[in-house]
Amino acid sequence: MSTNTNQGLEGVVAATTRLSSVDGEAGFLLLAGFPVEEIAPQATFEEMVHLLWTGELPDAGELADLKRRLAAKRTLPEPVLDLLRAAAGKRVPVMDALRMASSALSLSEGIGDSREDAVILVAAFPTIVATYWRLLQGREPLAPREEHGHTESFLYLLSGEEPAVERVRGLETYLNTVTDHGLNASTFTARVIVSTQSDLVSAITGAVGALKGPLHGGAPGPALDMVFEIGTPERAEAVLREKLDRGERLMGFGHRVYRVRDPRADVLAAAAERFYRHGGDEGLYDLARSVEATALRLLRELKPDRRLDTNVEFYTALLLHGLDLPIELFTPTFAIGRVAGWTAHALEQLATGRLIRPQSEYVGERDRRWMGMEQRAAVSV
Amino acid sequence: MSTNTNQGLEGVVAATTRLSSVDGEAGFLLLAGFPVEEIAPQATFEEMVHLLWTGELPDAGELADLKRRLAAKRTLPEPVLDLLRAAAGKRVPVMDALRMASSALSLSEGIGDSREDAVILVAAFPTIVATYWRLLQGREPLAPREEHGHTESFLYLLSGEEPAVERVRGLETYLNTVTDHGLNASTFTARVIVSTQSDLVSAITGAVGALKGPLHGGAPGPALDMVFEIGTPERAEAVLREKLDRGERLMGFGHRVYRVRDPRADVLAAAAERFYRHGGDEGLYDLARSVEATALRLLRELKPDRRLDTNVEFYTALLLHGLDLPIELFTPTFAIGRVAGWTAHALEQLATGRLIRPQSEYVGERDRRWMGMEQRAAVSV
Repeated sequence: MSTNTNQGLEGVVAATTRLSSVDGEAGFLLLAGFPVEEIAPQATFEEMVHLLWTGELPDAGELADLKRRLAAKRTLPEPVLDLLRAAAGKRVPVMDALRMASSALSLSEGIGDSREDAVILVAAFPTIVATYWRLLQGREPLAPREEHGHTESFLYLLSGEEPAVERVRGLETYLNTVTDHGLNASTFTARVIVSTQSDLVSAITGAVGALKGPLHGGAPGPALDMVFEIGTPERAEAVLREKLDRGERLMGFGHRVYRVRDPRADVLAAAAERFYRHGGDEGLYDLARSVEATALRLLRELKPDRRLDTNVEFYTALLLHGLDLPIELFTPTFAIGRVAGWTAHALEQLATGRLIRPQSEYVGERDRRWMGMEQRAAVSV
Repeated sequence: MSTNTNQGLEGVVAATTRLSSVDGEAGFLLLAGFPVEEIAPQATFEEMVHLLWTGELPDAGELADLKRRLAAKRTLPEPVLDLLRAAAGKRVPVMDALRMASSALSLSEGIGDSREDAVILVAAFPTIVATYWRLLQGREPLAPREEHGHTESFLYLLSGEEPAVERVRGLETYLNTVTDHGLNASTFTARVIVSTQSDLVSAITGAVGALKGPLHGGAPGPALDMVFEIGTPERAEAVLREKLDRGERLMGFGHRVYRVRDPRADVLAAAAERFYRHGGDEGLYDLARSVEATALRLLRELKPDRRLDTNVEFYTALLLHGLDLPIELFTPTFAIGRVAGWTAHALEQLATGRLIRPQSEYVGERDRRWMGMEQRAAVSV
């Protein structure tokens, strides 16, 4: 292989960005200049979106304007709804349905201007996911209400109930936390697509396709399965020790980038605690904290050189489970947050970037000559 | 910027491949080991697809099997057809409609196995494009016929007429010629998406979205417009000299990668000549050759240091125009050929690659602190 072959592009800087900064050694995440723990629990999702798109928090007029524009684009075009009905009939997985519907947003009124496309995409994602989930359950979709905030709307469209403020705040903190995270594979996909001067619907559709891959969107479900399997705090040590002795990975611990505690874990833990303590299953929350503490103690004892710490999946699972989201909606809900970052990166790439066009190294045969079918038959005899 | 920042990824090798090798200095293109001029005019499209997917030309049994499998997947699922009808009602551009329909192929019977997904995608592309084009014209789509070859089927589904063999051969040579071309932006998009262990429908949908960008899919139309503008061979020198004096680019000449004659140009010129001489507009073919010769002479005279030579767009335009394809279908027809390469790259990446995850460099603010709305109002006063 040539000396500059780097199939994973590790360490190659493929974009400059003002959107986020990930310091995996220090366990630090900046979102548009704000430490994640500073911005995620305080901003509404609409404020976060405005911040990512423009670089600044909105003033009151700007915020009202963005809320109005997002609310106005919340209802899906009829053919997109038809497509979701067809997908539900075939039991298509949720991420595929989201990708199909995302691509079909070219049917929306007003599509074609990048900034408006961004509004249309961000606005539609919660409706797509909630609508599709209801269709999969054999229930009729609900009509979005313009008076709802973005996060509130998602919970309402799923359940038909007006969600409590603690739950909206919990989900909003989650969505803010995952809006952006450097040049991960889906964000990079969006930037590569739009680097050809293509459009935002194409970029975000590609990003959804990348996020659905198990090496990226991951599976926050298993972290929670482990907590349920343990069941009570006093069983934690025995179960976890047995898993580690068998050489199993502990789901929810360790990350490709973070060598220390994922800064998002504490943000999500605090957000989850708030609504678990307000009418939620406090016992489950306390069990999860206890499992985490035991897991960290055992990992330090048994794998002292690995620096495995709690990752974002552990508290994502606890938080989303507490909001009554089924495991099938964990990755789609991640996409509802991340689409804010995808659209911001696409706008940034359009404004500042150029065509992304790497090289490949050819390792195949050379100088082959055409053979007619008779010659091929002779060769294979 | 850090020393390893490379926003276009120029010269970075992001994949090893057995699919194609582009030598821009020598003007040489290998497709699975065959020089393009050796394989493109001789193989059927089905043979080309088998070659790219497996590394070998098919024997008679394998070829019959692939033809049968592709023909069996040529009919679009009903909801995909409904989606195209809705798109035509909104006059959605053809590449967006192709991306929407491609994404919706998750509704196909048998989807979910990568090799079968590749068959479904390659088989569906000509039907999608021809069906959508007829709907845009207010005509009813035609039902695919199983007895047609892949290339023949596209021409039939567009026009409803059985195409002459010279025309099928001409289009087949074009499709073969553009099946693959190193790690261009759309192919790279497909590999990034599937590097997360996502699926082929996601990868190819993303690739369509990248190809639609004007910096990639390009616009082979203008090269032909120039030929039409010139009109007769004797006007070529005056018109071209005037354009060059005004500092205009000559459409159809010069390429980002090739510093000498694009090896695909001669393959396409020969393919076009064959059917232009068989009942086509011979005058137009001769005019194009004459315009090319004059353009090359003037470019060498006026820009001797630029090494501008005929690119693939020039003869693509002539060839596709001769097949009665409208300019709006030039890039979609390119996609019908390139999807063979996209699927082959996606299969190769799944088999041999790992997660593609570059870095970004953060150039924004740091350590910003949350401000409530009142503080923001105070700041902006």
